Amino acid sequence: MTLEHPPAAPLPGALMAAEIAEQPAVLGRVVTQGVGDVEAVAGRIREARPRFVMVAARGTSDHAALYFKYLVEIVLGLPCGLASPSTTTAYGAEPDLRDVLWVAVSQSGGSPDLLESTRAAGRAGALTLAVTNNAESPLAATAELHLDVRAGVERAVAATKTYTATLLTLWLLVDEWSGRRQLDLDALVAAAEEAVHVSGVEEVAGHYRFVDKLVLTGRGYAYPTAREAALKLMETSYLAAHAFSGADLLHGPLAMVDTDRPVLALVPHGTAGRALGPVLERLRDRGADLTVVGDAESAGQRPAIALPRVAEELSPLIEIIPMQRLAHAMALARHEDPDAPRGLSKVTRTT
Amino acid sequence: MTLEHPPAAPLPGALMAAEIAEQPAVLGRVVTQGVGDVEAVAGRIREARPRFVMVAARGTSDHAALYFKYLVEIVLGLPCGLASPSTTTAYGAEPDLRDVLWVAVSQSGGSPDLLESTRAAGRAGALTLAVTNNAESPLAATAELHLDVRAGVERAVAATKTYTATLLTLWLLVDEWSGRRQLDLDALVAAAEEAVHVSGVEEVAGHYRFVDKLVLTGRGYAYPTAREAALKLMETSYLAAHAFSGADLLHGPLAMVDTDRPVLALVPHGTAGRALGPVLERLRDRGADLTVVGDAESAGQRPAIALPRVAEELSPLIEIIPMQRLAHAMALARHEDPDAPRGLSKVTRTT
Repeated sequence: MTLEHPPAAPLPGALMAAEIAEQPAVLGRVVTQGVGDVEAVAGRIREARPRFVMVAARGTSDHAALYFKYLVEIVLGLPCGLASPSTTTAYGAEPDLRDVLWVAVSQSGGSPDLLESTRAAGRAGALTLAVTNNAESPLAATAELHLDVRAGVERAVAATKTYTATLLTLWLLVDEWSGRRQLDLDALVAAAEEAVHVSGVEEVAGHYRFVDKLVLTGRGYAYPTAREAALKLMETSYLAAHAFSGADLLHGPLAMVDTDRPVLALVPHGTAGRALGPVLERLRDRGADLTVVGDAESAGQRPAIALPRVAEELSPLIEIIPMQRLAHAMALARHEDPDAPRGLSKVTRTT
Repeated sequence: MTLEHPPAAPLPGALMAAEIAEQPAVLGRVVTQGVGDVEAVAGRIREARPRFVMVAARGTSDHAALYFKYLVEIVLGLPCGLASPSTTTAYGAEPDLRDVLWVAVSQSGGSPDLLESTRAAGRAGALTLAVTNNAESPLAATAELHLDVRAGVERAVAATKTYTATLLTLWLLVDEWSGRRQLDLDALVAAAEEAVHVSGVEEVAGHYRFVDKLVLTGRGYAYPTAREAALKLMETSYLAAHAFSGADLLHGPLAMVDTDRPVLALVPHGTAGRALGPVLERLRDRGADLTVVGDAESAGQRPAIALPRVAEELSPLIEIIPMQRLAHAMALARHEDPDAPRGLSKVTRTT
């Protein structure tokens, strides 16, 4: 005879932890299952020869959009802007979008304002592409082209695997569009695996245990990570986490940084890390409590969390992983459940 | 015989207060002295027939750039993007900028990264325009076209009159470029004068006396104001002031808003105010401590600070004025000197 136990109540944060850990496998799937679609979409875009790119997104997807903007400008040499959907949805603007590629990025593919602005972009002459985690979504059906990021169902409210899957899908698109084909998938998956287990996260969470105001900074490709990490900390731990590009930080917000407001700097190997050098120097001069996530060589100090090295363009996929873990660990340390942030639901509908 | 007194020590915040109060006069001067230059520059731009606009700026000027983006998309029907100068200065990108108008906005006209990215934009085929408060600046000399915002010397570290002068210069440019000529200067100056004296600012500063985390929100044309107001509060009172567009607030950061984190909503008369309606409703449902700056009709409640009505496109010039006063009043209430924020100097050099 066996005893029957009732099913165990889920542990707080179990969903988010599982989805963080799933990312190496998701990245592999994005490439192996997604590359055919990416080739087809890149081919259509190359034929259309767009001269400008506009990207529309909200929340976490907006940080993926910002990453894409850096890629488009640096790799493809095309000017790129982030769209303000309200110019269309609230003010009825219909700009002339001939020769424009309009990319709408949305995990759910359900946000009414993205749907409406994407429809308007198509009417205004743009080639439209939806990048979503839901091939059956209204946004996927509305845009002329669609890429499924193939992250699988995401159950935690705080987006993690959909973010990195979206970044990789966008990188693959740019790589294919540019005709380079530079991916070393094994190295990327190995780095993601290392990031899932890298030490230092618990120590940083402990250091920040009683912090309620935090500044994050990064430059170039690391700036979207600073913003996404700040959002994760806000969503799960209700911290006042401010992200500034290193340059903007020196234009005003530096006044806030003092001994009671620590700074977390994203300093990956490569240009983004090196470009942050003068900002780190200024922060050290002010006696700021500075935690470095990244690379000792770029930062001029031993990082609290050391990131595995990958090609700089791909570093945002790796460096966000310990930041997701930090958000998760800080929520638990504060007795919050990161799987159930107050006031949020998985799909946000804005008009 | 008269007694000689040593000159009185300046009162804390006297410079910032004087420059806030000077704004109605500055706005008048921008128009009367500046309109000739604006006509000439608008003529050159119309001849060049740009199809896409990129705007580069940092700090306060970045909020003026965002305002300009709304104007360009809504009034002129051209897609517009905010530039990431580091794609050029750190990564050496030289995107194809033929048919692009590149606008660099900088109060001092001295920031090395704007200088370098503007030079690169010119080489890449863009028509370049510098908008500065210093006609003798390197940026003014580098760009093909220049507009002086004519705010006069600004001595306080926190930019106030240069911000509104820049907004009006950019509005005049779009108005002239579009061929409308819609300005009622007397009404604008009267509204600015009213905003300099409008009641409620001291009461809101008192309500927020012990607050150290604050969320600001606005949509459409009011969103740049939310960001600029947050920066002023960060610079002068070291508050953790977060600005979110109403739409983005619902995608995550809403979790932070609770009874210990008040929300200040910018709800002007017109589309921007009405578009915030669902966000206000959500905030009220959550029991948020909500302060409205704006218009009773748009907000569905009596505002704590009532804004004079002007044409919606011009409302950002008016609604920022009580927010500057709020930053000033909160700094004084906390025994800080808003004229001497710690760690800041007037000209910020970022590379």
